[in-house]
Amino acid sequence: MSEEFRLTDLEEMEAATERLLETGAKVGADSWQLRVKNQTPHCKFGEKGICCRICAMGPCRITPKAPKGICGCDAAGIVGRNYLKFTAGGGATHSDHGREICRTLYESSADGAYKVKDPEKLKKIAGEWGVETEGKDIYDLAHEMAEKALMEYGKPFGTQNWIKRAPEHTQEIWRREEIEPRAIDREVSCSLHMTHMGCSSKPEALVRQSLRMGLADGWGGSMCGTEFSDVLFGTPKPVDTEANLGVMVEENVNIVVHGHDPSLSEMVCEYADDPEMIAYAKSKGAKGITVSGVCCTSNEVAMRRGIPMAGNFLQQENVVLTGACELIVVDVQCIFPALGPLSKCFHTKFVTTSPIAQMPDSEFIRFSAKTAAENAKSIVKMAIDNFENRKPELVHIPQMKQKATVGYSVEALVKVLDGVCNTQVDTLGTTKPLIECITSGVLRGAVAMVGCNNPKVRSDKAHIELMKKLIANDIVIVASGCSAQAAAKAGLMDKRAKDLCGAGLKRVCELADIPPVLHMGSCVDISRMMILVAELAKDSGLKISQLPVVGCAPEWMSEKAVSIGNYVVSTGIDTFLGVDPYVSGSEEVSDLLTNGIRDWVEASYTVELDIEKLVDKMIERIEEKRTAIGI
Amino acid sequence: MSEEFRLTDLEEMEAATERLLETGAKVGADSWQLRVKNQTPHCKFGEKGICCRICAMGPCRITPKAPKGICGCDAAGIVGRNYLKFTAGGGATHSDHGREICRTLYESSADGAYKVKDPEKLKKIAGEWGVETEGKDIYDLAHEMAEKALMEYGKPFGTQNWIKRAPEHTQEIWRREEIEPRAIDREVSCSLHMTHMGCSSKPEALVRQSLRMGLADGWGGSMCGTEFSDVLFGTPKPVDTEANLGVMVEENVNIVVHGHDPSLSEMVCEYADDPEMIAYAKSKGAKGITVSGVCCTSNEVAMRRGIPMAGNFLQQENVVLTGACELIVVDVQCIFPALGPLSKCFHTKFVTTSPIAQMPDSEFIRFSAKTAAENAKSIVKMAIDNFENRKPELVHIPQMKQKATVGYSVEALVKVLDGVCNTQVDTLGTTKPLIECITSGVLRGAVAMVGCNNPKVRSDKAHIELMKKLIANDIVIVASGCSAQAAAKAGLMDKRAKDLCGAGLKRVCELADIPPVLHMGSCVDISRMMILVAELAKDSGLKISQLPVVGCAPEWMSEKAVSIGNYVVSTGIDTFLGVDPYVSGSEEVSDLLTNGIRDWVEASYTVELDIEKLVDKMIERIEEKRTAIGI
Repeated sequence: MSEEFRLTDLEEMEAATERLLETGAKVGADSWQLRVKNQTPHCKFGEKGICCRICAMGPCRITPKAPKGICGCDAAGIVGRNYLKFTAGGGATHSDHGREICRTLYESSADGAYKVKDPEKLKKIAGEWGVETEGKDIYDLAHEMAEKALMEYGKPFGTQNWIKRAPEHTQEIWRREEIEPRAIDREVSCSLHMTHMGCSSKPEALVRQSLRMGLADGWGGSMCGTEFSDVLFGTPKPVDTEANLGVMVEENVNIVVHGHDPSLSEMVCEYADDPEMIAYAKSKGAKGITVSGVCCTSNEVAMRRGIPMAGNFLQQENVVLTGACELIVVDVQCIFPALGPLSKCFHTKFVTTSPIAQMPDSEFIRFSAKTAAENAKSIVKMAIDNFENRKPELVHIPQMKQKATVGYSVEALVKVLDGVCNTQVDTLGTTKPLIECITSGVLRGAVAMVGCNNPKVRSDKAHIELMKKLIANDIVIVASGCSAQAAAKAGLMDKRAKDLCGAGLKRVCELADIPPVLHMGSCVDISRMMILVAELAKDSGLKISQLPVVGCAPEWMSEKAVSIGNYVVSTGIDTFLGVDPYVSGSEEVSDLLTNGIRDWVEASYTVELDIEKLVDKMIERIEEKRTAIGI
Repeated sequence: MSEEFRLTDLEEMEAATERLLETGAKVGADSWQLRVKNQTPHCKFGEKGICCRICAMGPCRITPKAPKGICGCDAAGIVGRNYLKFTAGGGATHSDHGREICRTLYESSADGAYKVKDPEKLKKIAGEWGVETEGKDIYDLAHEMAEKALMEYGKPFGTQNWIKRAPEHTQEIWRREEIEPRAIDREVSCSLHMTHMGCSSKPEALVRQSLRMGLADGWGGSMCGTEFSDVLFGTPKPVDTEANLGVMVEENVNIVVHGHDPSLSEMVCEYADDPEMIAYAKSKGAKGITVSGVCCTSNEVAMRRGIPMAGNFLQQENVVLTGACELIVVDVQCIFPALGPLSKCFHTKFVTTSPIAQMPDSEFIRFSAKTAAENAKSIVKMAIDNFENRKPELVHIPQMKQKATVGYSVEALVKVLDGVCNTQVDTLGTTKPLIECITSGVLRGAVAMVGCNNPKVRSDKAHIELMKKLIANDIVIVASGCSAQAAAKAGLMDKRAKDLCGAGLKRVCELADIPPVLHMGSCVDISRMMILVAELAKDSGLKISQLPVVGCAPEWMSEKAVSIGNYVVSTGIDTFLGVDPYVSGSEEVSDLLTNGIRDWVEASYTVELDIEKLVDKMIERIEEKRTAIGI
């Protein structure tokens, strides 16, 4: 209680990493830090987006002497195509994750491995989708809804069901601009068709489809992922956990879950908690079993189970470098292939489980909804059996962790807000208390902090520094993905971090008993943020683009991040990037993204590599928005 | 009749092009020949497939000093991912073309622009798909089948309907190897998911999905394109036409159709034939209207209407350079963005029509099934109105063309074979007469010649030289796409080309009254070739892989070509490439494609850049296959 609170600073984290890299050096391990050196400088053509490998006549590169590719495509066409292909990669990836969740829901049963933990949410969605729920067995409903959701990926006619959640004004924009997303997979195929040799080279057309593709993700596949994960595994509510490598326990069997799909990690957590397994671990000389997480799958199980977070994207090698990781089990996305060879330098078992993500130097246990229980059990058992193979001389877990309260789904947030309402006069179950805080100026606004780490930015620095300055300026933060983990590791999700806030935000934190940085989940869960802004707009009567709210991905690196950026912007939220997308080779495309699309969707991108300037620009934008609506 | 026949040789074609480029130089036009010079040499990293731009940590390039990307992905993983992404681009593109055809079928009506011209074929397919046809109005059936076909793109469960057409043994292979294609668009999304940062890096997994993606194209989307095009526009049967730039008529209004989807070109041809339009053309001083084609849309209308073929892929700029092209109207794929600026150097109108393919410097007339008639009419009228703007001093049409008999759909081929049967003893309607020719040795085998042009190969040379040698060796050729057009331009689709054949093939040509190179259609129509080999296998009792049949794409360039290659190989047909795919940077991936996949699908790739060696290897493979089955 009275334990002194202070943030973990970057230097401490880096010192811990240095110490781990020393272990790595001893065993001849590679690391991203070394590989970055080998890969620097990067190819300028690639960085600018002006290298085209779309057909086998090339590759073509744009230079002043060669302003066009062999087909005659110019820089704008090449950059635009690359941007759309990049978006399609991300949109397809998130959405395919969502599809797997729908498939898991389809396999759910009262006595199976997967159950419906939030039947109310399922019924609510069914209501939105016009599906009768009265008198229906919840699993019949689950299967019916799963099939309907799977059809969102491939239905020949119509647009995404979820978009009806957006404010009418936003829906109108999407209709007017012809970016209403149709079947999710169709938008993917359409994007690849448009970028095929000899198809679209008009930047407007390519950028427009990039936005539509993004919307098919955020208001399609990702939203399926989030919402049906909640149905299956429970809608997150505030829960206490811890973050950073110190959550690993030397005396225990350490299992690390890494990837994205909770279908795997939920089962692993389930079986790691099984008394039979714990007893088995003890029989092997361990004191117990600790599951911790890396990357978004960590966010998923932290939000729902309080499972501690070992680290984010660029810390994935560190968990192995502790020498105390018996097993790291992964499903899909953002998994370094480097984990294969690295695990061979230690006793660590590196287990891949998805046909989508197969990697050399891994043990492959094919995980499926039908065999989930048995798969998870054998994974936990494999970890326990591996405990005795630890090399004690290589074991070093940096004793560094912070407390964090996580689990702020939109439902949880609304409940928190209900708690500060005057039940005599206020309507419960709305975002109105938050709107009042913003309108009154107690809070200046909100920033959605999202995205990855990227070695092009000093790791976690942008996330943490931006958040510190924003909360000091009474701007509340909702965070997801690796950004959320950066916050948690630093201590910004400890409720005591209120003391770092401006007076307004501090008061809100105290009243509502929340930390100033609210953990909203994994990267697919940015769909939660879309629902939140939609509710804010509806409850306030403002357009989304009028809200003093911006998005920020200061250290992004993946195709998914670009897809996200596109749907956030298309939803009317200005989005700030700290890493250059591969578009600087075309002024036309750059100008569209940072300027032109504002005429279409009332928001656009800002790219600013200087962190100080980035945060100032966000605050400035928020204040501009306040002024514009006269608050 | 007694007109002397000789092939047009490459030098003549090149001289004609030179003359056109002189016109181009006069008006300051750019050309692919110039752009190739500017873009040479190409980036070696790109050519080898070892440049990775899948995330924004990079780009990364593999070198001896930097054998891994920042994430730890090695050359094999990078090359494999690039290969799968390339395939997905092609598969999505063909399939989206197929989807548009299904949508056109959905809009067909007894009194509309689009009718069902081959109701029997529609009923036959309905039968295969288990759809009741009895007593159904043909348009009701058309709409029902269109909707079912559209579901092939997105159905949540099951595999492609068309694969039931493959021999049981082939279907078994696909099941065993887990490459049975599911919903077409799902395979696209799945491919992009697998190639996302931190997903698959195991070459086997990436190549396997490349094959599955290819099958979703060839036995999915492309087959939808071909089969329902036949339903809508008629199943091709032998028809006489002409090929090469000489088909353009100086005194007439020249309209060139370019692209792929017959929904557009059929309508343009329809209205160009309208007496009202012809009268209007005459009123403007022209003698009439000539529609000719470029690229695959040309193949479509040549096969069904005898519309002459002005040229193939690398000749697309030439049609404008004649100075006699009033209008070039395009839909999707393989259209040089260069046509925009080039057309501005002449009076030519460059009209884009598809939201999928929008290009700068073009006039956009949005074409849709619902407004097709009116769109086509306004396009034809625009061409006529433009006749008076010709600059006579720039007009020069090379007087070079050849006769060609085209239109050999599988149905047409079987009918031709019926003609050589002894109706007393033989069963009609099978491929058995062809099998007998092969078994007896009168024909040694067959080669499917397909694919594009690519400046990396002297244009058309590989197509023409290979065909000449093959037919001289009694190997019959089925050709499609730009390969077919190369043959037609040279004269190899003139029935008199029988005199260039070996004695066996010559006799077959005479008996069946066919040319030695049989035009089977556009690039989606390679699905026809799949149906043909399936029939050959069933009728002969052999496995497809045992047939003395190979595929060859000597000058390929597009993503589509790689998707095609993958489904041809996966169907059990050895495939020979004359242009390197971007995989040489990984011995592992190269070896899989040229060797390893034979264990999976009984066929593999051969890459050989030397044309002479390429043809010899094909002949050798055919003879090996003959020996193996003892014929």
